[in-house]
Amino acid sequence: MTTTDATEPVVEELERYGRLAREAALSYLEADGLSPYLVAPAVDYLARGGKALRPALCLAACEAFGGDPARALPSAAAIELLHTAFLVHDDVEDDSDLRRGEPTLHRRYGRAAAMNAGDGLAVMALGALRGNERLLGPALAARVWAEFDFMARQTVEGQALELGWQRDGLTDLGPDDYLELIMKKTCWYTTLLPLRVGALVASSGASKPANPFRGSASPTPDPEALLRFGFFLGAAFQIRDDLLNLTGAEALYGKERLGDLREGKRTLMLIHLLAVAGDEDRRRLRRWLELPPQARTSGIREEVLAMMEAHGSLAFADEFARGIARSAAVAFDEAFADAPDSPSRRFVADLVPYMVDRDR
Amino acid sequence: MTTTDATEPVVEELERYGRLAREAALSYLEADGLSPYLVAPAVDYLARGGKALRPALCLAACEAFGGDPARALPSAAAIELLHTAFLVHDDVEDDSDLRRGEPTLHRRYGRAAAMNAGDGLAVMALGALRGNERLLGPALAARVWAEFDFMARQTVEGQALELGWQRDGLTDLGPDDYLELIMKKTCWYTTLLPLRVGALVASSGASKPANPFRGSASPTPDPEALLRFGFFLGAAFQIRDDLLNLTGAEALYGKERLGDLREGKRTLMLIHLLAVAGDEDRRRLRRWLELPPQARTSGIREEVLAMMEAHGSLAFADEFARGIARSAAVAFDEAFADAPDSPSRRFVADLVPYMVDRDR
Repeated sequence: MTTTDATEPVVEELERYGRLAREAALSYLEADGLSPYLVAPAVDYLARGGKALRPALCLAACEAFGGDPARALPSAAAIELLHTAFLVHDDVEDDSDLRRGEPTLHRRYGRAAAMNAGDGLAVMALGALRGNERLLGPALAARVWAEFDFMARQTVEGQALELGWQRDGLTDLGPDDYLELIMKKTCWYTTLLPLRVGALVASSGASKPANPFRGSASPTPDPEALLRFGFFLGAAFQIRDDLLNLTGAEALYGKERLGDLREGKRTLMLIHLLAVAGDEDRRRLRRWLELPPQARTSGIREEVLAMMEAHGSLAFADEFARGIARSAAVAFDEAFADAPDSPSRRFVADLVPYMVDRDR
Repeated sequence: MTTTDATEPVVEELERYGRLAREAALSYLEADGLSPYLVAPAVDYLARGGKALRPALCLAACEAFGGDPARALPSAAAIELLHTAFLVHDDVEDDSDLRRGEPTLHRRYGRAAAMNAGDGLAVMALGALRGNERLLGPALAARVWAEFDFMARQTVEGQALELGWQRDGLTDLGPDDYLELIMKKTCWYTTLLPLRVGALVASSGASKPANPFRGSASPTPDPEALLRFGFFLGAAFQIRDDLLNLTGAEALYGKERLGDLREGKRTLMLIHLLAVAGDEDRRRLRRWLELPPQARTSGIREEVLAMMEAHGSLAFADEFARGIARSAAVAFDEAFADAPDSPSRRFVADLVPYMVDRDR
């Protein structure tokens, strides 16, 4: 076991939920006699495991609010399928070498087959959502579908924003810009959608205007508090992810170290460094950021990392993430106030410290 | 006007339908304050025009069967958005230089932004389909959605098959394999889905088991005949497309000439050539096909083209396409027997000769 003691129970629960979601996800790919030319690359990342954070949040939120997690399983599978599709495309976009400690899909199958497998995974996710119609009834299925639609818009817009900032060479960004970016790029698909869909399915979908989750006598979240919780939880996750890209052991983290510096990603650490560095260092940084990714050699990347360490940018981001995690804990208490104590409620609560303590 | 006289009336109708569909498609991208970082690359190909064959088929089929084409417009827009998404991803997959006579999207915006714009276009297509729920009612909207779901599976599977054949270096393929491939890769999304959705929307969606299109007193297609028609029409389209890649003027065709030979695509012409070439030529061909795409230089490509010309492979494919077009005309008469004469019915009929005569 490669995790620290504090995160171990969370990891075990993640593995349990992950198995459920992955089995369901794979069932859509193995169902109807699809060509092995499509299935083999499409199942590759799923078979490598992964944290399964997103489907776990969906299933646990459903259960914590008194729902039957089996009714959230197609949605959880769709989340994992879409997440896998994003990873495949993201790896092609960044031309990454490693994912989950093995060669990326385009290294293994070529770029075209990998991109097509990503498209195929997204198609399978939509197929999973179509199954909701029979399982949940048309009204609730349509509301779940609307959540996915909104999330997908936010995600592609966030990705476009991040790439646009890199392309335009923006260097005058503040922490607020970063938070706005990851709200779109990360939080909707990593935490907000899973939480909202889990709670929606638990509520059985009938709604009063005041609270879209209140459809039955079961406990319901306060929608505003759930939004806050999902945002803080997702932001803590992303900042930790960015930190692991700089400091994590490649074997654990499973991705190429310092890949974000090669991409010139506008992380909180880079934004901090640009703000606090002296004039000369800032000028050098800006010159580096104007280079194309392949010109940001490992020597340059190590030098930028050393500057971040010297200027306390890593400590700043870690402290920032821990502050956000404290806000997440407060928002959790409000959002889940109505939900009685249960293993799934405790699991969601435990995800808050897990987000900032995990080492993979 | 760059078209021959025979295709001119069809081209004018295509342009009229195309304007309608593109305006609708753009409205989804320009609607809700999306970031210019996403919108600019996403609208780029749409603004370049294009044949608009797919949305035109959908709108015309709806109208020919007595439906109001306005009720098919969101579906037609979704078809055009999805088609554009496919083009963007296809150009990245093949690393093409030109699309519609201008640089491809990844040449203009970088690979990552282009791939993300493709994803964004697909997301917008699904948003357009969500709008069907209010316009068509939940039952018919769900049936249209099922058509898109099935089509998308066929398309990604067809693409996987084509890439897999290239990767595995298959050279023992026959015309039947090619037809099976393009049924999946091309026909579902180019002709079958547009025709079926147009007819479904016209029928208002209530159904008898015997004929899914028969929902009202309006004229309805025979589903089997419509399948045959769509398949023959799409096959004629794809064979002509493959021929234009070899013989078309780049300025008209808007794509890089001989790109398919660089990719090693298993076209009908290549399958014919492999079957009829002498032993020595066949050995040389097989060696060429084992090379990576970038090693199939323009010299090699011109040589393969010369072999195809010498062995009558182009004439064979052209004749094959014209035979299929004759079958399409027969199937059209059966599929549209119930539909009274109208401009839209005549337009669909005229598409049959257009498919094999067009020069772009």
